[in-house]
Amino acid sequence: MTRTAGRGGARRLVVIGADAAGMSAASQALRVAAARGERLEVIAFESGEHTSYSQCGVPYWVAGDVDSADALVARTAEQHRANGIDLRLRTEVTELDLDRREVAVRVLDSGRTERVGFDDVLLATGAAEVWPDWARGLPGVHPVKTLDDGATWRSLLAGRDGEPPRRAIVVGGGFIGVEAAEAFARRGVQTLLVTRGEEPMSSSLDPAMGALVREGLERLGVEVVCGTEVEGVESRAGELTTACIGGHEHRADVVALAVGVRPRVELATAAGLRVGDHSGLVPDHTQRVADGVWSAGDCCEVWDRVLEQYWYTPLGTHANKAGRVAGTNIGGGSARFAGSVGTAITRAGEAEVARTGVLADWARRHGWDVEQVTVRSTTASGYMPEADPITVSVLGERGTGRLLGAQIVGGRGAGKRIDVAAMALWSGLGAHDVAAADLAYAPPFSPVWDPVQIACRKLADALSR
Amino acid sequence: MTRTAGRGGARRLVVIGADAAGMSAASQALRVAAARGERLEVIAFESGEHTSYSQCGVPYWVAGDVDSADALVARTAEQHRANGIDLRLRTEVTELDLDRREVAVRVLDSGRTERVGFDDVLLATGAAEVWPDWARGLPGVHPVKTLDDGATWRSLLAGRDGEPPRRAIVVGGGFIGVEAAEAFARRGVQTLLVTRGEEPMSSSLDPAMGALVREGLERLGVEVVCGTEVEGVESRAGELTTACIGGHEHRADVVALAVGVRPRVELATAAGLRVGDHSGLVPDHTQRVADGVWSAGDCCEVWDRVLEQYWYTPLGTHANKAGRVAGTNIGGGSARFAGSVGTAITRAGEAEVARTGVLADWARRHGWDVEQVTVRSTTASGYMPEADPITVSVLGERGTGRLLGAQIVGGRGAGKRIDVAAMALWSGLGAHDVAAADLAYAPPFSPVWDPVQIACRKLADALSR
Repeated sequence: MTRTAGRGGARRLVVIGADAAGMSAASQALRVAAARGERLEVIAFESGEHTSYSQCGVPYWVAGDVDSADALVARTAEQHRANGIDLRLRTEVTELDLDRREVAVRVLDSGRTERVGFDDVLLATGAAEVWPDWARGLPGVHPVKTLDDGATWRSLLAGRDGEPPRRAIVVGGGFIGVEAAEAFARRGVQTLLVTRGEEPMSSSLDPAMGALVREGLERLGVEVVCGTEVEGVESRAGELTTACIGGHEHRADVVALAVGVRPRVELATAAGLRVGDHSGLVPDHTQRVADGVWSAGDCCEVWDRVLEQYWYTPLGTHANKAGRVAGTNIGGGSARFAGSVGTAITRAGEAEVARTGVLADWARRHGWDVEQVTVRSTTASGYMPEADPITVSVLGERGTGRLLGAQIVGGRGAGKRIDVAAMALWSGLGAHDVAAADLAYAPPFSPVWDPVQIACRKLADALSR
Repeated sequence: MTRTAGRGGARRLVVIGADAAGMSAASQALRVAAARGERLEVIAFESGEHTSYSQCGVPYWVAGDVDSADALVARTAEQHRANGIDLRLRTEVTELDLDRREVAVRVLDSGRTERVGFDDVLLATGAAEVWPDWARGLPGVHPVKTLDDGATWRSLLAGRDGEPPRRAIVVGGGFIGVEAAEAFARRGVQTLLVTRGEEPMSSSLDPAMGALVREGLERLGVEVVCGTEVEGVESRAGELTTACIGGHEHRADVVALAVGVRPRVELATAAGLRVGDHSGLVPDHTQRVADGVWSAGDCCEVWDRVLEQYWYTPLGTHANKAGRVAGTNIGGGSARFAGSVGTAITRAGEAEVARTGVLADWARRHGWDVEQVTVRSTTASGYMPEADPITVSVLGERGTGRLLGAQIVGGRGAGKRIDVAAMALWSGLGAHDVAAADLAYAPPFSPVWDPVQIACRKLADALSR
């Protein structure tokens, strides 16, 4: 690129969206450029009021684990500005013009518009909550995603005139739905979770493992209704009534929406950029989507190393890593985003829930000949007071013996064991390799064969039969 | 082999030592042989009274976490016999004759002796506690290793005439010493730990990490004296006085010995079998040490995959795995023991302590050009009530970028994170691979970059400078 858009001949990067991906990229680009002695100007536009906050922390703020929204902010606008980023909050990018290499922006408070040129642009526009048509405009019906959503829920749960809601319905049984249900229940609200899956978390877990999540929620007092879908909500005198398929009705004071998110790509597609099978942008391994155009975070699909295809996995971990990769490359360095293996974790009451890799169904659709093994063990040696039940389910491929996926539900210390399987998937290890590996054992921490290893040993046996 | 020693033409396996390695091997050999339709007779000799118990659980029995010794027994003599193993307790093998293919045994209670032929023999004689000369024959001075030791300590801690000891000295700052000190402190005994290392666990951790272990013990009320060695103990009217280097004396009612173990190989060396640099037997990857002679467990050295040499790592995990490998091969199947990467974990009060791979000192002696990075983070997202401090230290090789080792000390959820590093060492991954890997993140479980990944990311940066 010969032309430079920045001041005094500096190269200019425009970042659209100032959350995890965008600001990781911005900070890293400045760091790398500075280390290389190159001049880089970074302008970041954010339509909201917050930067670099932990969206994953919002349910825990709603639950009361976290006192203030400030605690969720990893780096404030002031800190970013002190680091040399020209950060403009409440400023919406209304158009991306790739021919002229400029964006059109509107300052929300003044209505003032401006066009800003760039050499590089990073799309970090994130994901948008899916709002079903029936949910629009009803007070007390709201998603649980952003920091602003969190503030809405803190206020809803505080109650009108100090009277908190007694009953809540959570629509959707995925990660956020489960976390919202846990939050409400822990706040003392009588909570009903409605999911269309056979069991909760049906996009992430097999039904048998999902049943353990349901039991975790039920032990917390949450009522779980599976296999149905909310088709509408009626509001009458402050009471909400949801109508489900089959004519069932449930009443509540508030309704939390957790039916999913979709990549926010309107600017990109209007600019002629291509989206993938999951409607997200499809960056290459350097996070580049076109000449001088980069993208990272929840507006992107992510390379799945197990499936060997792009997949939509909108998670903070990928946003941070991919943002850093984009920033390194924009700054003139060299980095590659190595992809995902589909690892995720959450909590349903006392139950720790984690997964990585593919489910048996997906694998069969992929044409893989698979074997699955599920074992029950304990998180510590069985004779120790720390021993909690743990269920581990593992999936492997006949022929190659390769581990393809793992799911864990169990007590304290169960969930993060998924990382062993994630590391195995990362390296393409066989089930027998995991069984043979040298994992940490002492009675307060594990049985002598770690539960993940017990499962993989039995899987290796099954695969060799 | 044409001749068979067993009844009715069956092949006979003699197992010497009926703990984890021996009985894993015996059970697996029978299973594999049966699956292959082969006849195998197994006779197991054990000089003690117990089989297949968790030696690692003994300190927790002493601490009172476990009520009875029975809880530590994974499989009783009766269960082994019901599985078809001819198990003979309190029967000592006094000679191994490899030319005649027979062992000489003595039944301890009757004094009766016998010679028993075999086709295959498995040496699973374990390790012996090191007793310093000054410690012999003094009441109240005892190791903390076997189930019998545990019974001794339960009785010592119950006290003479119901009066429990007020003060204890633990000699040795390794894993067992730390666990014994924790056990005594939790039983309300005023405890002093003496270690010759600069800090506790000096064979396993760098001094800076060992200092965190010391702090964990100190928070539990244990006094820790480093850099000195006990040279003698004097007993006077029931009070013990230890004399340390430099003339320091410490008084106590009981003294726990935890100065190490050595492989028990007398039978093997008398039979002409070779031992390695660490005085243990040196089986090949099938656990074979000579024709028809096998070995597994704490009497063996273990192949270290990082150092690429044999090392003495007497741990239950290796004993179980290597026993299983030996059994598979003896039974006519095919298995290889894949070795160790030096993973270990324990607890020092509230501090979880874990390590894997090599220390910087070892690496430098090995001729590796290394870089080390230590980071402090939290076990959960910093804003969560679950967040405990965690310190992670990682070591990598310049040039290759390969991870060589990791050490962790921290609060709840810290220790088992070592498994991520262990899996990386297992696969020979680079520090940058670990930083890029897809580990599980949600606020109750981890910061968005897992602390192990933060450390590896910084290490990768340092290695690339």
